[in-house]
Amino acid sequence: MRFRFSVSAVRSRAELLRSQLDLLPRSYSHSPFPPPPRPSFGIAFDIDGVIIGGSAPIGGSPQAIQRLYARDGTLRIPFLFLTNGGGVPESKRASQLSKLLGVNISPLQVVQGHTPFRELLNRFEDEPIVAVGKGEPDTVMSEYGFKKVLSIDEYATYFPDIDPLAPFKSWITNETCNKKSATMSVHPSYDVYSERVKGVFVISDPVDWSRDIQVLCDILRTGGLPGQEKGDQPALYFASDDLEYQAAFPAERLGMGAFRIALESIFNTVNDSPLKYTSYGKPNPFVFKNAEAVLGKIVSTMHQNKEMTNKGQAHSFSTLYMVGDNPKVDINGARKAGRPWFSVLTRTGVFKGKDNHAQFPADLVVDTVEEAVDSILKKEGIE
Amino acid sequence: MRFRFSVSAVRSRAELLRSQLDLLPRSYSHSPFPPPPRPSFGIAFDIDGVIIGGSAPIGGSPQAIQRLYARDGTLRIPFLFLTNGGGVPESKRASQLSKLLGVNISPLQVVQGHTPFRELLNRFEDEPIVAVGKGEPDTVMSEYGFKKVLSIDEYATYFPDIDPLAPFKSWITNETCNKKSATMSVHPSYDVYSERVKGVFVISDPVDWSRDIQVLCDILRTGGLPGQEKGDQPALYFASDDLEYQAAFPAERLGMGAFRIALESIFNTVNDSPLKYTSYGKPNPFVFKNAEAVLGKIVSTMHQNKEMTNKGQAHSFSTLYMVGDNPKVDINGARKAGRPWFSVLTRTGVFKGKDNHAQFPADLVVDTVEEAVDSILKKEGIE
Repeated sequence: MRFRFSVSAVRSRAELLRSQLDLLPRSYSHSPFPPPPRPSFGIAFDIDGVIIGGSAPIGGSPQAIQRLYARDGTLRIPFLFLTNGGGVPESKRASQLSKLLGVNISPLQVVQGHTPFRELLNRFEDEPIVAVGKGEPDTVMSEYGFKKVLSIDEYATYFPDIDPLAPFKSWITNETCNKKSATMSVHPSYDVYSERVKGVFVISDPVDWSRDIQVLCDILRTGGLPGQEKGDQPALYFASDDLEYQAAFPAERLGMGAFRIALESIFNTVNDSPLKYTSYGKPNPFVFKNAEAVLGKIVSTMHQNKEMTNKGQAHSFSTLYMVGDNPKVDINGARKAGRPWFSVLTRTGVFKGKDNHAQFPADLVVDTVEEAVDSILKKEGIE
Repeated sequence: MRFRFSVSAVRSRAELLRSQLDLLPRSYSHSPFPPPPRPSFGIAFDIDGVIIGGSAPIGGSPQAIQRLYARDGTLRIPFLFLTNGGGVPESKRASQLSKLLGVNISPLQVVQGHTPFRELLNRFEDEPIVAVGKGEPDTVMSEYGFKKVLSIDEYATYFPDIDPLAPFKSWITNETCNKKSATMSVHPSYDVYSERVKGVFVISDPVDWSRDIQVLCDILRTGGLPGQEKGDQPALYFASDDLEYQAAFPAERLGMGAFRIALESIFNTVNDSPLKYTSYGKPNPFVFKNAEAVLGKIVSTMHQNKEMTNKGQAHSFSTLYMVGDNPKVDINGARKAGRPWFSVLTRTGVFKGKDNHAQFPADLVVDTVEEAVDSILKKEGIE
C-alpha cells in the first residue's frame, strides 16, 4: 500500500488553522510548514506495557510517538491511545501523556476503558450512581455529565460500621471521615439514606477490595440501600475485564477482571440470583469500532473537509494498526474486529515470547513500540 | 441431671493452691471459701454476637459469665470461649476478655480459630512461613513456637512493585516501608529472596485484600518465591471459613470464608491446578472434640487430681453446652459433634428468628447469653 495524496491536502493556512482545533500546538500559527497530507491509515496504541512501564516511558515511546508529528508539532499521522486503564478524565490523561512524550496529545486521542460510559448518560444522568476505583472516579463521571455521582470512598463514609475492617485502616477513618464531614456540611450529591443507587460504575482498579466488595454486595443485594431488605440488583458496569496486566513487577499483576471474579464469586455465594454486569474494554470488538470512529474524527480535525466528513468518507481507512503488548486483549481484539485492523505485538509488556503468540498470533511481532512505528511507516511508504 | 459432688472436692488449701494455676485470682490464697465442687458439665461460648457486639458486651454477658465464678473469684463452672475469630495471642485475648467481663479469664479458656495451628509446629517450626490477617498474626505464630515467621505486611515490603496499588495506599508505603528498613537493618526472620515460603497461615480476617490476594497468588503459584517460575503450591491454612458474621452493622459482614472464596476463584483462574487448602474453625467436629479436651484440662486445673486426670476421667462430661448466635457455624457444629454436646442459640447475633432455626435447629433457643446461662444452671440444678 502506498501513501495517497488527497486534494484536500492543498489548503490555505487560514483554512487549516480553523480546522486544527486542539490538535494544534500554540506555535502553529507561526509555522512555515505546509499542511500535512491525508494518510489512509491510523494507529491505536495500548499504553501500559507499550508506551509506559509502571510510570516511565518504555521501548523508545517518546521517539516513536514524536515521529507521528510534523516538525512544527502538528499531527501528521492520525493515532490515538486505546487503553483499558483509566481513573482520570481524558483531558488530564492527555496532558500527562503530552508531558511524558513531549508532544501535544489531544483529549480526543485518549480512549480509556471508561470513555464509552458517556453513552449511558441518557439513562443515568439524573440517577444516583456510585463510581469505584483508583484515581478520581467521581470526577470522571461528573465530567461526562452524570449529575448524581458519589465515589465509593465517600459513599461508604455515610454508613457507620459498614466496613468492620475500617479500624485496621487508619487512613480511611482519618482521611475520608474528614472528607465526609466536609462534604456533608456542604451537600452530598444525593441523600444516600433515601435515594437508592441505580448504577455502579467501576472506572479503574479498586484499591480497597475488602471494603469495596462488602459495600458493593450491600448495594447490589438491597436494590441500592445498604442495610435494607433484599431488592433488585442495580446496574453494574466495568470499564474493562483484564485479568492480569504488566506493570513494574516482573510477573503480571491482577487487574479489574480479577476484582470482578472476586466480587462475582462472593456475591453469587451470598445472594440467591447471580450477579448481572456489563464489561467494556478490549477485546470487545465494539471498542475497536469506536476507535475507528474516533480516528475518523481526528482525521477530520486534521483536514477540515465537511463535505467528506458528512459523506463519512473521512472514516474510510485502508489500514488501522493496533499496537499492543497483550495477545489476549490487544491482538485478540484486533483479530475479532477484523478489517481494516492489523495487529502489532510488542515484547515490552505481557508478551515476551521469541516467536509469535500461539493462541492469538499477531500480524506482526516487534520488540518495541519504536520498532512498531518504524515498520508501520515503512509499510505505508513514509520515509 | 443433678449436680454431682466429687470426693476430689474435699482438699487442703495448699493442694488446691498448687492446682489452680492461672485460673486463680491473686487474692485466692487469702480466700476463706472452700474449693468448688466438680461439675459434670461444661460450657463453650462463642464470642462475637454472643458475648460481644462490635467491641461492647451484649446480652448481659458480664453478669452471665460472672455467675460461673465463686464469690471469691475462683472458677466454679468449667467453661471456655470457642471462637472462629482471632488475630492476637490467647494470653492477650484472655486479658482483654477479663477486663471486659470483670472476671479472671485464663489463656487456657480462649480457643480461637488459629489455636489448633499449634499442632502444626512439628512440621513448620523451622520452615519459612507467612502469617496473614488483622491484629498480630506473626506474634501469634511466634508465640506458638514457629521460628521463621513473617507477617504478610512485612513480607510484601521486601518485593518492590509487588502491589501496583500501593501508591494509592499511602499508609502502606509510609508505615511498612519504615518498618521494613528498620527490620532489615536488624535481621528478617529469613531471607525472602532465597528461602521459599513453605506454609501460609491465615490467622484472622485479611485487611488489604487486593495486596494479600496478589501476594498470596505470587507465593502459591511460584512455590514460595514471588516473581519466579511456577512451582508446587506451599501449604495453605485458614483459621476459619466463616462466610459472614454479625458485627456492629445491621447486616452481616463478609468474613474469612469470603476472602477464601475470592482468593480461590482468582487463583483457579490464573493457575493451572486448583487451590489446595485446609480450613479450621467451627463447624468442624474436631474443633468441638478439641474443646472437650480443653474443658477436661480446665476441670483438672480446678480440681487437681492426677489419678483421675491420668485415667482421663476428668474428660467425662455428661453435657457440654455450645452457646452461639450462628446456626450454620455454632449449632450445626455442635449437632455434627453429637453427644455430649447440647446447642443453645441466642438472638443477639446472626440469628434473629422468632422460633428455632429451620435448617439447623438448636436444642434450646434463648434471647441472650444471660438467659442461656440461667437456663443451663437451672437445668443442672444449680441455684
